[in-house]
Parts: sequence; C-alpha cells; structure tokens
Amino acid sequence: MIVLKLGGSVITVKDKPMTPRPETIRRLAGEIAEADVKLILIHGGGSYGHPVASRYGIKGGYSSENQLQGLAETHQAMVKLNTLIVEALIKAGVPAIGVPPSSLIITTDGRITELELQALRGMLKIGLTPVLYGDAVLDTMLGFTILSGDQLASRLAVELGAERLIYGVDVDGVYTKDPKRDEAELLERVTPKTLRELEAASPTAVDVTGGMRAKIEEALRAAERGVEVVILNAMREGIILKALRGESVRGSWVVADADD
Amino acid sequence: MIVLKLGGSVITVKDKPMTPRPETIRRLAGEIAEADVKLILIHGGGSYGHPVASRYGIKGGYSSENQLQGLAETHQAMVKLNTLIVEALIKAGVPAIGVPPSSLIITTDGRITELELQALRGMLKIGLTPVLYGDAVLDTMLGFTILSGDQLASRLAVELGAERLIYGVDVDGVYTKDPKRDEAELLERVTPKTLRELEAASPTAVDVTGGMRAKIEEALRAAERGVEVVILNAMREGIILKALRGESVRGSWVVADADD
Repeated sequence: MIVLKLGGSVITVKDKPMTPRPETIRRLAGEIAEADVKLILIHGGGSYGHPVASRYGIKGGYSSENQLQGLAETHQAMVKLNTLIVEALIKAGVPAIGVPPSSLIITTDGRITELELQALRGMLKIGLTPVLYGDAVLDTMLGFTILSGDQLASRLAVELGAERLIYGVDVDGVYTKDPKRDEAELLERVTPKTLRELEAASPTAVDVTGGMRAKIEEALRAAERGVEVVILNAMREGIILKALRGESVRGSWVVADADD
Repeated sequence: MIVLKLGGSVITVKDKPMTPRPETIRRLAGEIAEADVKLILIHGGGSYGHPVASRYGIKGGYSSENQLQGLAETHQAMVKLNTLIVEALIKAGVPAIGVPPSSLIITTDGRITELELQALRGMLKIGLTPVLYGDAVLDTMLGFTILSGDQLASRLAVELGAERLIYGVDVDGVYTKDPKRDEAELLERVTPKTLRELEAASPTAVDVTGGMRAKIEEALRAAERGVEVVILNAMREGIILKALRGESVRGSWVVADADD
C-alpha cells in the first residue's frame, strides 16, 4: 500500500482564493488510475483551506465562540476541494471516497493522539481509494487546530504499514535554499543530519527551503519506521505514475540512516 | 441534545434525480438556527443517493468489483447533498460540519455494529452541529450496504443520550393507510402494538403506510431506551422550530408503553 500526499500548491493556485488547477487534477487522477495500486491519497488545502483558517485563527485553537463558524467554513472549503479531487478520480475510474480527518482524528497540542482506522482499513481492503486532506480537527488542549496533510500522511503510512510515502510538491525536492528564489542544489538524499544543517542555516522561523522543513520532519518520522519516503515534483507529467509503480524518479529520498 | 432526521422527500424532489428543494432547505436551516439547541442533524438521500445506489445494487452488498465505482458514486452523490445542507446551515449562522457515516460506522448484515463516536462527541461539546446522512457503508457480512438515516438517527439518539428524536417527513405522521393515496387517520400515539397491527394489515413487503413501517421500528428502538420520539411534517413552516424548542406540535408520538 502506498500513501500519496499532493501539496496544496500542486492542485490549487495558492495565491488565488478557492482556485483549483483542474487540468493538473485531471492529469494526476489519470496517472493514479493508470498506476492501479492500493493507495491512500491525501491532499493539502492550498487556496481553499488556508485563507479562511487563517482569517479565524483556527490553528491557534479556541479563543472565542465565533471561531466555530470559521472552523465550519474552513472544513467546508476543504470538502469543496476534496469533492473536486474525488470526482476527478471517479471519472478516471478510481473508486475514490472522501474521508474527512475531523471525523476520525483528535490531536493533542497539534499532534495526532486519537486515530480511528477501522473504516479506513476496510475501505482499502475492499478496493476503495480513501482521499483525506489537511483539516480543522478537535484538539484536547487547544479545543481545535489545523492538522497538516503532511503529518497525516506520515502517520497513516506508519499506522497502516505503507511500503512507500510520496510527497508530491511543486519543486523537484529538497534544496539547500528556496529554489524559487535562489540558485540552489537539489539534495537527492535527506537525512536527520540534513535537517539539522538546514535548521542551523536558518534558526529562526524563516524556512530558507521554502516551507520544506516541517515536511522533512514528518517525512523522517515515517522513514525511521521503515517507510520508503520520497519528495518529488508532481507538476512534472508522468512522475507520479512512475513513483507509484516504484520506478526510479528525480526527487529527494528521505532516509533515517544509522551511520548519520 | 436533540437528534433531528430530515427525510429525503423533505429536502429533495424524490422523483427527479439530483434535485434539491433549496427553499425548503433554507427555511429549515433558519428554523434550526433560531432554535439554537445542541443538535445532531441527519438527512436522507432522496433523489441523490437512491438512484445511483439502486442502479449498482449497493444495498444488497458486494457481488462484483465494478460495484465499487457505484459505491464511490453513491457516496459522492450524498456528499453533494450534504454540502447543500451544511452550507445552508453555515449561512444561517449554525457552525455545521459534515460527518460521513462511511468514515466511522461499520454494519453487520445491515445493522450498526461499529460506531466511532469520539470526534462526534467532541464536536457537540465544543458547540458544532454535526450533519450526517444515510450512506453507503462497509458491512462485515455483505462487504458493503446502505445504512438508512432512520437507523442512524435512532442509534445516535440512544448512544449519545438524546432527550428527543425528531423524524421530519412530508406527511403529518403515521397513518393507518398511505395518506397520499387513501383516506387515512393520523395516529397521534404509536406503540409496539400499532406496529403489530400495521404488520397484520399488510404482511407482505408492501407497506400500506407509505414506507413508514421501517421508520417506526427504528423509532421504537430509541423510545424503548427512554428517548422522546416524534414523527412530524417538516414541510409545515415553523414545526421544526417548535419541536426543537419542545413546544407542542401535531405529529405521531412513538412510545414503548409497558401497558401495551
């Protein structure tokens, strides 16, 4: 079984509210259909979930009652995006079914502590493709928060014994700097040492690699538990198909080396 | 806490595929907002879920692999209807959140045997209004089946200790015959004895009361566990608001009398 996470920047236009990339979604649904593997798909929020979640301060947790309306709107924005993905998959011949994390996951200070997997396991077993996403979820300390698709993907890969975890983003992998801004070198191999070096290079909240650090942390958690993890560019045609098939692709392989 | 089930015939035009009743949905969302009570809402499938589920024989369970596509389509049709309800509620000021039964319930031969309630309880506690629906679910004997909103409503009312369970339909309650076809008398009080009499009146699969018998069976299950249960006409303006507030309304009260 494979866990595939598609970043919000891949499937939406990140700086235009509620704007999907229908052609990319259609192409990726086709590649997933062609690969024909047992799969859990997880997608990010992009320009759907993020603007409304940020307007209401959902990630920071409960501070006032009118945030509940914001939580409801955040979740519903994600359901709308999920509907686009699920319907593209169904159209491509993949029996996909949306599974909202808020219905089966509870976090504690932002980390998953309750995770109800029975229905998810049953769906995989019978041949359905569950499609989850970053979502507003209940949190035992904060009241509620935002669960990232990256954390969810890594945790599900571990819990369900995935052989491979693929993070599909809009760059070729992990760079020493933000490849969209600076000349940067692609790291084909990312280890805990790489993470420490990146942290040393920008010790503040600023992430010089373009928001990649948190993703690497989640990726390493799965790699440490024996999952093969790769971060690759899902905007490149055919790369998801190859990666799902286990063929060699350009990207950053995240490994938890003992000799590191 | 109150469980409100709205029938598919109330919120959709039952004989026109994928046709909602937007005005009715908007009015009901307004009544729910005005009532301002702790609530779980459950809705039926009407012209969304039923046609596709029936085309693929989802209720009868797994017999061939291409039914998975049908299951995916059935679920997605229900998500579409759920989206209309949830968005009408959010617009009316109710922080509503869709919760798909397929993500947290597993049945055995059509009856709920696994039910993950932790997230649902958390949503209620924090002040969200969960909105569930009749759905295609996994079944340990059949592979999958259709879980009716009626069974779900009754079971959730019992499990979550609801004080009241309201079935909103498109007739005034339980009649001795189908009120849409024949002269019939409204029963203001429905007991296990009533059910036996209705069964004696039409012992075959034909339900002379217009599909009401299965609903009464589910209603009695909750009544037996101490829940106040009423079947009423949600098409009548203001009746849902009154019922949510606990005011007296026209309808059939389902009671499990010991002296019966």
